[in-house]
Amino acid sequence: MTAPETLQFENETLILIDQTLLPQELTYFHCQSVAQTFDAIKRLVVRGAPAIGIAAAYGVCLTAPSSDQGHQAAYQPGASQADYLAAIDYLATSRPTAVNLFWALDRMREIVETTALPQLRETLLSEARAIHEHDRTMCHAIGRHGAGLLQESRSILTHCNAGGLATSTWGTALAPIYCLQEQGRKPKVFADETRPLLQGGRLTAWELSQAGVDVTVITDSMAGSLMRLGKIDAVIVGADRISASGDVANKIGTYPVAVLAKHHGLPFYVAAPTNTFDLKLMSGDDIPIEQRDRDEVAAPYGIKIVPDQASVLNPAFDVTPASYVDAIITEQGIIAEPNAEKIAEHFASASAN
Amino acid sequence: MTAPETLQFENETLILIDQTLLPQELTYFHCQSVAQTFDAIKRLVVRGAPAIGIAAAYGVCLTAPSSDQGHQAAYQPGASQADYLAAIDYLATSRPTAVNLFWALDRMREIVETTALPQLRETLLSEARAIHEHDRTMCHAIGRHGAGLLQESRSILTHCNAGGLATSTWGTALAPIYCLQEQGRKPKVFADETRPLLQGGRLTAWELSQAGVDVTVITDSMAGSLMRLGKIDAVIVGADRISASGDVANKIGTYPVAVLAKHHGLPFYVAAPTNTFDLKLMSGDDIPIEQRDRDEVAAPYGIKIVPDQASVLNPAFDVTPASYVDAIITEQGIIAEPNAEKIAEHFASASAN
Repeated sequence: MTAPETLQFENETLILIDQTLLPQELTYFHCQSVAQTFDAIKRLVVRGAPAIGIAAAYGVCLTAPSSDQGHQAAYQPGASQADYLAAIDYLATSRPTAVNLFWALDRMREIVETTALPQLRETLLSEARAIHEHDRTMCHAIGRHGAGLLQESRSILTHCNAGGLATSTWGTALAPIYCLQEQGRKPKVFADETRPLLQGGRLTAWELSQAGVDVTVITDSMAGSLMRLGKIDAVIVGADRISASGDVANKIGTYPVAVLAKHHGLPFYVAAPTNTFDLKLMSGDDIPIEQRDRDEVAAPYGIKIVPDQASVLNPAFDVTPASYVDAIITEQGIIAEPNAEKIAEHFASASAN
Repeated sequence: MTAPETLQFENETLILIDQTLLPQELTYFHCQSVAQTFDAIKRLVVRGAPAIGIAAAYGVCLTAPSSDQGHQAAYQPGASQADYLAAIDYLATSRPTAVNLFWALDRMREIVETTALPQLRETLLSEARAIHEHDRTMCHAIGRHGAGLLQESRSILTHCNAGGLATSTWGTALAPIYCLQEQGRKPKVFADETRPLLQGGRLTAWELSQAGVDVTVITDSMAGSLMRLGKIDAVIVGADRISASGDVANKIGTYPVAVLAKHHGLPFYVAAPTNTFDLKLMSGDDIPIEQRDRDEVAAPYGIKIVPDQASVLNPAFDVTPASYVDAIITEQGIIAEPNAEKIAEHFASASAN
């Protein structure tokens, strides 16, 4: 069993698993225009920084000629460079905080600016496929490196969804689990449901069970007593941003899991591609934490569970200092007990390759 | 401002705040029969061990004469002793695990068995009022003792609802907070929402805001980073059962909060009346942990958030070892750094009073 493909591009159509409808139903959303791609990113049909980047890259390939352009250049029925650049600018506004979105769109922009029109459409599609393929390669490399670290771990806890649904294929934190599953080791996974948006209960549980992995959903408040009772051997999570010193910003609730892991003597691993590092940031405390909408906590699915008179906090992320992290797993390898020196070394050896 | 009364008995009617409808609406449920009282307890219209005990005691007073009895004893239109005993047996089956329910019904049974019929109804009502009043006194005593401990704490975290809605009035864990509020100290409270059943978001937030206390709801996964950022000064929770050694069984998610408090050097307090102690149990690990229905986690409010193929765990409680507890606050006073000796001493001095 393998999990379904998060993104596909076939017959001029970007085909996305509609993640807003999971786990109730598996439905594919078809994008045949830039506007539909924008809508899919905006509405979280596709989510997870790497998956958003790939979707946006394919979305650029769906650029239609503007009607003006059609009149002025009858010899060239396709989109103009100006049309492609307008599409790139438009897609960049779909999720303003997604770093991978800008990274992917910058790659596409460079192609537009350096390629002659007759080859442009084909070159853009090649670039989008290369971005997609690069992500797939990266996920598999993280999977192999992480599976080595988790060889002795029978029972693994994860938080949020850093899985195939957030990337092209295996994901980051879930990649080592898929790799162990392929090796026939049958890992047992506990998935924190991850309030407020429940990405663990909805998405991690869905994709792992689709792939035949033994997965058990718990509320975020249950992980501690499972650790105390010896039911968890290791923790692995993804990352939204990592500072030059190895501090990890990730989904709210990651830090308490790291504290609990340390308290119970369990390894705590972070899996993330090298482009998750923000080497300009020396400390995780410099990472700005987005405060999200009250109703994600107070009125999930439109049901009011918190009275109006009470205040609500809803930070999207927390910061786990590097001292809680036993290893960071990238596509380049493993940074054990990460700190500024080891991270600088990891990047130096990567660029020397 | 004060919070509304959880239970009242007026004009042969037991009047309960309908907690199933909070926080959306404040509605009172009127019980004029044993069957309605049974229904209210069963459906969680009234919840929290002390409140259930009080409701059941009043419920006994609503016993109607059986029709047989009515015929046989025309000189005595009220209920017979057999009617009262049948009502007691029936009410005891409403929530089979609630210790305070049995304790209250045993007190009522003793009255039935030792009181002559002419005075029985009046004596039973006096006993129910005494149970109610005893709970109120206990809550206020815990409030005073706890407020002393929390004098220096500006910002206090609590988990679940051990408040007025779970008792007659101030509750246990929330009693010191009400006491500080009365003293004009304006405590700032953070309430864990407390998945799966959201008693913190729904009930603690509601009753504290009704009483004018500054309360902020967070998901259970947010407490750790608030502690790291120095936003919390102390933690106080209730207890479902406490062993002779001071281990505390309480709502799932209590143990990780205790670990986080210890990790961040914050005091962790447990507030509970002496009848919460189970002195026959030497260790918290001997407390059986109820596993509750899958759908409380997987399909809250009927909305499926976990796919059917994934497993779910739903333990109702966890156990916090005594070594994590800085003090247990009872109506008799404070047990600092609790252990078997200190708890035995606390009970010896209480019974000497």
